[in-house]
Amino acid sequence: MTEDLCPEIKQHRKLTHPIHPLIQNRWSSRAMSGETISDDELNSLFEAARWAPSSYNAQPWRFLYAKRETPIFEQFLNLLVDANIMWASKAAVLGVTIARKNFERNNKPSVTHAYDTGASWQNICLEGTYRNLIVHGMEGFDYEKAKTVLEIPDDYAILAMFAIGKRGSKESLPPALQERDIPSPRKEIEEFVMEGKFRK
Amino acid sequence: MTEDLCPEIKQHRKLTHPIHPLIQNRWSSRAMSGETISDDELNSLFEAARWAPSSYNAQPWRFLYAKRETPIFEQFLNLLVDANIMWASKAAVLGVTIARKNFERNNKPSVTHAYDTGASWQNICLEGTYRNLIVHGMEGFDYEKAKTVLEIPDDYAILAMFAIGKRGSKESLPPALQERDIPSPRKEIEEFVMEGKFRK
Repeated sequence: MTEDLCPEIKQHRKLTHPIHPLIQNRWSSRAMSGETISDDELNSLFEAARWAPSSYNAQPWRFLYAKRETPIFEQFLNLLVDANIMWASKAAVLGVTIARKNFERNNKPSVTHAYDTGASWQNICLEGTYRNLIVHGMEGFDYEKAKTVLEIPDDYAILAMFAIGKRGSKESLPPALQERDIPSPRKEIEEFVMEGKFRK
Repeated sequence: MTEDLCPEIKQHRKLTHPIHPLIQNRWSSRAMSGETISDDELNSLFEAARWAPSSYNAQPWRFLYAKRETPIFEQFLNLLVDANIMWASKAAVLGVTIARKNFERNNKPSVTHAYDTGASWQNICLEGTYRNLIVHGMEGFDYEKAKTVLEIPDDYAILAMFAIGKRGSKESLPPALQERDIPSPRKEIEEFVMEGKFRK
């Protein structure tokens, strides 16, 4: 629960401008230990999600999850593509993030349902970082199968899956994943921020 | 830049489970002072946005912005509905968040473009909280006009606007807004988190 920079971040992530260490420290390893996590830890992750901002405070985010010690874990795991199953099988929790497409108060479409849900998701990532847990998002899964198996109604958009777990040794990953298991780089600010009108 | 809880949060935001104070402290007042902010501060907000996670590390987020001391500020302000102009006219920076709908690497649609951009947006909110700046998202603006005025191409989704500013006195807000200018409540965790399959 320290906010010193972790070794991988120190080595691989150079900033142009200073930011809060919690935000700087977030990255998503795949090296999980196969241990469970406590309900208290999991609840704090969802509590963090709870306090994200959303348009009209509609809170469109919903999280479905399975703990590895329960029978339903296998069903969540089998939604994933093989390349994800390879490492996510050691997660403590697997989940699916969905968003209500229309406002509850008037059933009109919400432009920001996925955007707001992404904000909520980022809080989970950061609370996980704070707790030294791995939180890893995935779009490598069968969206249609998730909808059927988890009985997700049409009025919810299926956005992503996630794996949460305790850190394991990098050496336990298959060799190809070991190499990739470092914090990834980013575009320069000038590539995604524009003063005034849009420009390429 | 302290991480003690701010007085409004202490008073209005009761947690069920403990979370990092940075996440707990984030709320979006409308009471801005009308001062400018420095480029260093603004750059740190965008630096925070930079390090969010995204599917295939595609980083679909783009931020267009205007500083209040520049002529283009007026054009951003005039995209907003009157109810937002009333307070956002005192912002130091106004911005529009957009997302590239297709991946750059293969031009195929990205399911997570808005979701990933929401994660990036939340980092701006949190970095702003850390710096004692107000960061307030809005969907109360003319999306079509934004597209035209800011020359946003069709391959980008317009998601939201935002106002960033220094805190001003609550008393400077119109009376109706003063009352509403407190941290908002949230659903209970049980209302948006489900173990296993979807349930209402």
